[in-house]
Amino acid sequence: MGLIVAFDKGGVDEAAALVGKLCGVVDGFKVGVPFLLANGAASAGALREKCPSALWVADLKLADIGYVMGLTASIVAPFFDAVIAHGFVGYEGGLDELKRLLDEKDRKLIVVASMSHPGAAKTYDKVLGEVLEAIEAAKPWGVVAPATRPSIIRLVRERLGNTVKILAPGVGAQGARPGEALCAGADYEIVGRAITGSENPVEAARRIIEEQRKTLSSCRGAGQP
Amino acid sequence: MGLIVAFDKGGVDEAAALVGKLCGVVDGFKVGVPFLLANGAASAGALREKCPSALWVADLKLADIGYVMGLTASIVAPFFDAVIAHGFVGYEGGLDELKRLLDEKDRKLIVVASMSHPGAAKTYDKVLGEVLEAIEAAKPWGVVAPATRPSIIRLVRERLGNTVKILAPGVGAQGARPGEALCAGADYEIVGRAITGSENPVEAARRIIEEQRKTLSSCRGAGQP
Repeated sequence: MGLIVAFDKGGVDEAAALVGKLCGVVDGFKVGVPFLLANGAASAGALREKCPSALWVADLKLADIGYVMGLTASIVAPFFDAVIAHGFVGYEGGLDELKRLLDEKDRKLIVVASMSHPGAAKTYDKVLGEVLEAIEAAKPWGVVAPATRPSIIRLVRERLGNTVKILAPGVGAQGARPGEALCAGADYEIVGRAITGSENPVEAARRIIEEQRKTLSSCRGAGQP
Repeated sequence: MGLIVAFDKGGVDEAAALVGKLCGVVDGFKVGVPFLLANGAASAGALREKCPSALWVADLKLADIGYVMGLTASIVAPFFDAVIAHGFVGYEGGLDELKRLLDEKDRKLIVVASMSHPGAAKTYDKVLGEVLEAIEAAKPWGVVAPATRPSIIRLVRERLGNTVKILAPGVGAQGARPGEALCAGADYEIVGRAITGSENPVEAARRIIEEQRKTLSSCRGAGQP
């Protein structure tokens, strides 16, 4: 259906146990900088062992010159399938170098096109066109666009076509309803606290998947399952 | 004189030895994400022990919603005096929350106003005014502006006044000459590979400080030492 679970905090044992339970239920796991800094990048290896078949995304939100983003990506590459960087850093001397390095290591690049908090409206949004140009030049595997802003998801899909994957965070705690981003054209919805903070995370995930299915079938119309 | 040494990679023992040698020669140390991810955030504690009196900057280049930036900053706060975040995330729901958290922990916020690589000219530079507005709202202790672009350093100094510290990376490997950024109004120049990659890092640092002094005295005119 397209569901990725986000880990931002907590210890390795707790997270590994959760990954084991959710493996086969969800499609992937996104691990954030707070978790990786607290536990070290190699800790992601212990998580990955519990579900090697899932999509593993390092949510580093890289935003540096190409040389430094490359150094950082190299450190997490053994444990992840994909790495997230910011479109805001631009292409030349930024995303270009990172993309080359990830290609060499056979890892996927995912680029943030837009953020969901109010402050970004005055900065990120104002150069959305330029950010999308940088993304087109970088040819990433995936793009991040907020679930809370379906119009941006639609724009990314129109502009970049069907080959790129769209990942939409902001479902649950940040306010978007499960399935809304999929309706707008996203491939994956990213859910954090609504699953990881639940008393029964597997049940919470199943409920979200069921909601995604319902929302998607109603937005696509009765004729299309 | 205003010299901060940047560590982006390497092991803890090697870096700690280098810190021990450079302590008292330079003013501070900036530790990058690659180092912290490879060695875990707590590794910075071992570095800091070798020179507790220096200014310790966590160069996280945070660029996320306020909640996640706050989580990340909390993890490094025990080992650092200051944390670097990106101005392009904006204020509301971004830098505002991070600033509040750092104030609570009695730690300094440093915000990136501009980057030096060509790709940023099409994104970051186009919203420099908005980024500076976000920085004015956040009232950080310091601002990062590239040594390779003295006009931006002058603009930041004019706009934000003398209370804010300006930190200028890009000296050495990236092309700026020692002292140029100080002449433009920066308080600290940040040097990485030209010191950490040198056969004799202490001598390299002393040579850079001497160059800073000469450049600064010539740009300030003979009358001002």
